[in-house]
Amino acid sequence: MPAQYLSFRCSVPWLLLLLQALFLSYSFFGFLRARDIYSPSSFYPEFQDVNHMVIFGFGFFLMVLRRYGFSSTGFNFLLIVLGVQCSVLVEDFLVFLRLQQSEDGLRSLAKAVVSMTAVVISSGAVLGKASPVQLIVMTLLELIFFCISRCINRKFLQVPEHLSLLHVHLFGTYFGLAATSRFPEPPPGLDKGRSTPKSDLFSMLGTVFVWVFWPSFNSLLADSKKEAVLNTYLALAVSAVAAFMLSALTSKDGKFRMRHIHSAVLAGGVTVTYTAHSIQQPWIAMILGLLGSVITILGSHCLQRCFNPALKLQDTSGVHFTFGLPAVLGAVASVVLFVVERGIEKQWNDLSSLGYLVFFDIGAFCQTISTALITGLITGLILNIKLLKAVHVSKYFDDQFYWEFPHLSVGF
Amino acid sequence: MPAQYLSFRCSVPWLLLLLQALFLSYSFFGFLRARDIYSPSSFYPEFQDVNHMVIFGFGFFLMVLRRYGFSSTGFNFLLIVLGVQCSVLVEDFLVFLRLQQSEDGLRSLAKAVVSMTAVVISSGAVLGKASPVQLIVMTLLELIFFCISRCINRKFLQVPEHLSLLHVHLFGTYFGLAATSRFPEPPPGLDKGRSTPKSDLFSMLGTVFVWVFWPSFNSLLADSKKEAVLNTYLALAVSAVAAFMLSALTSKDGKFRMRHIHSAVLAGGVTVTYTAHSIQQPWIAMILGLLGSVITILGSHCLQRCFNPALKLQDTSGVHFTFGLPAVLGAVASVVLFVVERGIEKQWNDLSSLGYLVFFDIGAFCQTISTALITGLITGLILNIKLLKAVHVSKYFDDQFYWEFPHLSVGF
Amino acid sequence: MPAQYLSFRCSVPWLLLLLQALFLSYSFFGFLRARDIYSPSSFYPEFQDVNHMVIFGFGFFLMVLRRYGFSSTGFNFLLIVLGVQCSVLVEDFLVFLRLQQSEDGLRSLAKAVVSMTAVVISSGAVLGKASPVQLIVMTLLELIFFCISRCINRKFLQVPEHLSLLHVHLFGTYFGLAATSRFPEPPPGLDKGRSTPKSDLFSMLGTVFVWVFWPSFNSLLADSKKEAVLNTYLALAVSAVAAFMLSALTSKDGKFRMRHIHSAVLAGGVTVTYTAHSIQQPWIAMILGLLGSVITILGSHCLQRCFNPALKLQDTSGVHFTFGLPAVLGAVASVVLFVVERGIEKQWNDLSSLGYLVFFDIGAFCQTISTALITGLITGLILNIKLLKAVHVSKYFDDQFYWEFPHLSVGF
Repeated sequence: MPAQYLSFRCSVPWLLLLLQALFLSYSFFGFLRARDIYSPSSFYPEFQDVNHMVIFGFGFFLMVLRRYGFSSTGFNFLLIVLGVQCSVLVEDFLVFLRLQQSEDGLRSLAKAVVSMTAVVISSGAVLGKASPVQLIVMTLLELIFFCISRCINRKFLQVPEHLSLLHVHLFGTYFGLAATSRFPEPPPGLDKGRSTPKSDLFSMLGTVFVWVFWPSFNSLLADSKKEAVLNTYLALAVSAVAAFMLSALTSKDGKFRMRHIHSAVLAGGVTVTYTAHSIQQPWIAMILGLLGSVITILGSHCLQRCFNPALKLQDTSGVHFTFGLPAVLGAVASVVLFVVERGIEKQWNDLSSLGYLVFFDIGAFCQTISTALITGLITGLILNIKLLKAVHVSKYFDDQFYWEFPHLSVGF
Repeated sequence: MPAQYLSFRCSVPWLLLLLQALFLSYSFFGFLRARDIYSPSSFYPEFQDVNHMVIFGFGFFLMVLRRYGFSSTGFNFLLIVLGVQCSVLVEDFLVFLRLQQSEDGLRSLAKAVVSMTAVVISSGAVLGKASPVQLIVMTLLELIFFCISRCINRKFLQVPEHLSLLHVHLFGTYFGLAATSRFPEPPPGLDKGRSTPKSDLFSMLGTVFVWVFWPSFNSLLADSKKEAVLNTYLALAVSAVAAFMLSALTSKDGKFRMRHIHSAVLAGGVTVTYTAHSIQQPWIAMILGLLGSVITILGSHCLQRCFNPALKLQDTSGVHFTFGLPAVLGAVASVVLFVVERGIEKQWNDLSSLGYLVFFDIGAFCQTISTALITGLITGLILNIKLLKAVHVSKYFDDQFYWEFPHLSVGF
Repeated sequence: MPAQYLSFRCSVPWLLLLLQALFLSYSFFGFLRARDIYSPSSFYPEFQDVNHMVIFGFGFFLMVLRRYGFSSTGFNFLLIVLGVQCSVLVEDFLVFLRLQQSEDGLRSLAKAVVSMTAVVISSGAVLGKASPVQLIVMTLLELIFFCISRCINRKFLQVPEHLSLLHVHLFGTYFGLAATSRFPEPPPGLDKGRSTPKSDLFSMLGTVFVWVFWPSFNSLLADSKKEAVLNTYLALAVSAVAAFMLSALTSKDGKFRMRHIHSAVLAGGVTVTYTAHSIQQPWIAMILGLLGSVITILGSHCLQRCFNPALKLQDTSGVHFTFGLPAVLGAVASVVLFVVERGIEKQWNDLSSLGYLVFFDIGAFCQTISTALITGLITGLILNIKLLKAVHVSKYFDDQFYWEFPHLSVGF
């Protein structure tokens, strides 16, 4: 054990130091266009909302494990402050390569925070199994791969800049799932992998934060903000009602289950991500919210019983049905809505050009998912090489492996 | 017991499904004026504040019972997402009947969220005693009755649109009190009806949120926002100081009592609700905040010892003295301030026309209270018919009746 | 004991009543320029952020002691609502004396909330040792002394108005440290002075709030808001990464320590306070954030082992290394940056006029620290006279001395 502790001690701080030195020196040489950085932008309140949602909301949203509260919030915080800098750097590098246009400072920071959602979702899938070193490496790799996937979407599949960023849930989920499949399984009777009422309450606190700020998330980079806010709010409201409805229907004795509520209230927001800015009829957003909630709750049953055991997946905080399935549904819905709208507009003539555009749309979603799966698998393999010192399964889901507890004798 | 569980299971999800289908189909047929919905409005940050306050703040504010944390936050959330849709629908119906002008989307949503405060306050009065089915029925009935009461105020008593909405605390309290009087009393020695330090701490967390966002609540729909913000802030500050002062004065040994602080810090905000936009001298707002706090703490003593036992009221989270009495005080203050201001303006001539206007003002407040009491009593009777399956008193104040506890063996 | 309880009972509410009556009567006579008060200003969202940060964030940030949760949040709340009124009054008095220009209402309130940060920091130093009476007296004295110190800075040392307010961390820390040195020491084995995982989690919750809202704090009164926001965000991000890095490096077994994280993630925000609006290169802000974190963690080791025992200081929540040392570093950095910038601008000619300006800058910081130390010492002496009834050391760090616990038999 001491050897492992020591090796852990050796790696984390030096890795952080290295990265921070890299970001610093890059910002010294790279950020020469300082005037650009400080040019005005007027969406500070929305930026604050999204920042708050990602750091605070997701930090507490992930606090579902009994003995993993410090790590859930602490590591989420660490990954975000590290990842935001890394993301700004990667974006800047793309601008340097002329693959992207330069943007002002706050907007560039906002895009970095939105990108980080992918990492937060992936870290939810490996929650409690990855050590800080593994999480940091995963963050860096994921941000680079996500950037590449977005570049492909933009250059070859005609996805506009701000829409390419909204593939974040799709990418984050499937990247996380592929990575988690390479981690050794925890022993079946492990008690620490469950929640307590207290951890569920803190998780509810985080969920409500994420729910409230989701309209800001969807409207942050959209052109038509009002539509995005209203459609997202309506979709979220319907999916929250549906979450309670389906939770009572599917559980024994008709009681509500907290885990269902956590996942399904957010499903509506994920489902309308791609279409929030373009839907012109509120009932469409509401239907999407309803379907999002249905697919989340049904998915949570099917996946946990059939799919996950078959593929030996261990999706700790259920990101597949919370973010993945609704995002897939949203992708399908955006294609269908696009076809119907364009079809009606052109009275179903000129179908070949429509098919051409649809082909690009579907291609973009498939490209995102497949890139996420492949790069996630590669990352999972990299994370479990000897060098990165994987945590022993008996130490899974445990704060005490990572944090000092001067108050140990007291009990939680 | 199984029969009751089954009947509970049968009713909640189907009721939710029915309502959601209704809202969806209505939004399909009703929201044809889609362009109106997405017209611009510029008060998104304030809207977010109020949304956050109602969902998060009140959800945790109500978490005063030892074993009712999941239900306090969860049901509050469910009622709001359901009620907001219902409220938008009812408003839209009134526009259709030409009883009201059409409004843009975000403003209509904001009014719906403000209306929901009435339901949240009423649900605080029946906290722990009503099942989800009863709460849902209560929400729908209350929103319809509140809308009718506002229509009467607007049409016959010359109350402007945005002021009619501010009767929300008055209506919510007396509706809730009348409804709770029809519920069977819990047995006297019931331990679950009390709080723990932990639940008090979470409730404090919610209270601080409500306190911080109250200026946004009072200024959301006001014409003169700056006045509303400043007067509300000053009134809240003074009432918070007075809350500590009176709590130490009235309790044994001069200690502070958490329940006093929870209720009385908000009293100032409630008291200046009707007058925040029109007060021109800060000291008037401060005096109102002080009086609001005094009436809350004195009221909490008198009501709990004399009034409630006499009327067999069981006001679980003390909404009568937290929201009811300060709102009555605010109503009286708004009439007095109006008389003084107009009197000075016209040098106390033309008193008959002044009396005429005052008569309307007083009439509006009396109408709100009496409508709330009568419709609340009717609702209380409806909620306790056999069909709606009242909860047995032994199951009061208990999460385990409504929520699955997979972690039961762990203890809280 | 009863005598002490009674005397406590006698003093707190009457003191509050006296102060509130004073504020009310002053606002009646003083606020005659009502039109000024309600003139428009457009920074409401930022004001809300700072308000939220000071009341909610710091309230929960201070919740580090095992049995002091109610008092940490409750007294913080009381001091702020009292102090904001007091601060507005003192500012108004200065306007009356023509020492300062009149300002509109919301701006004046915002300045009062920013000033209160000094009191919050000082109360962190005496956390658990001062009774409410002592805290209230300290609040009033500190606000007056801080106002005097700012006046000296403005009149004689050419510090602009909004910069003079940013000396708030420097003043608050050294005032608090000087005051706490006059309090009797708690017995060494006192168990109540430590934290539990639960209190650490609540403190983490508060820390994240303070972290997220810090850019609003630094940009609230600045002229060039965009720069202030971006530089603060970058400094905070780097200092958070450095906090994790240094925490793992300095603790046994390379584990993270929660107390380190709490303090050091905020260090970056404090360090760039004076320069956030003027830095034109992001890497400078990042370096400052890094240095702030380093000085905090190293300081926490050195101070707690050498400095504090030598001076018999008992800095309960570690404000010296959380706010004091980074503020000193920020002061040094602002002077250095000023010299370099001016030097480059004028090509290192005209060094005498530069030296003259630097002398003023350094003078302002030294004046703030020395005024804080002297007035803090005086305040500490005043607080410990017989009249103000100091708490016995055996009652330190204990909620039960101040709050009613109707749920005592239940346990926390």
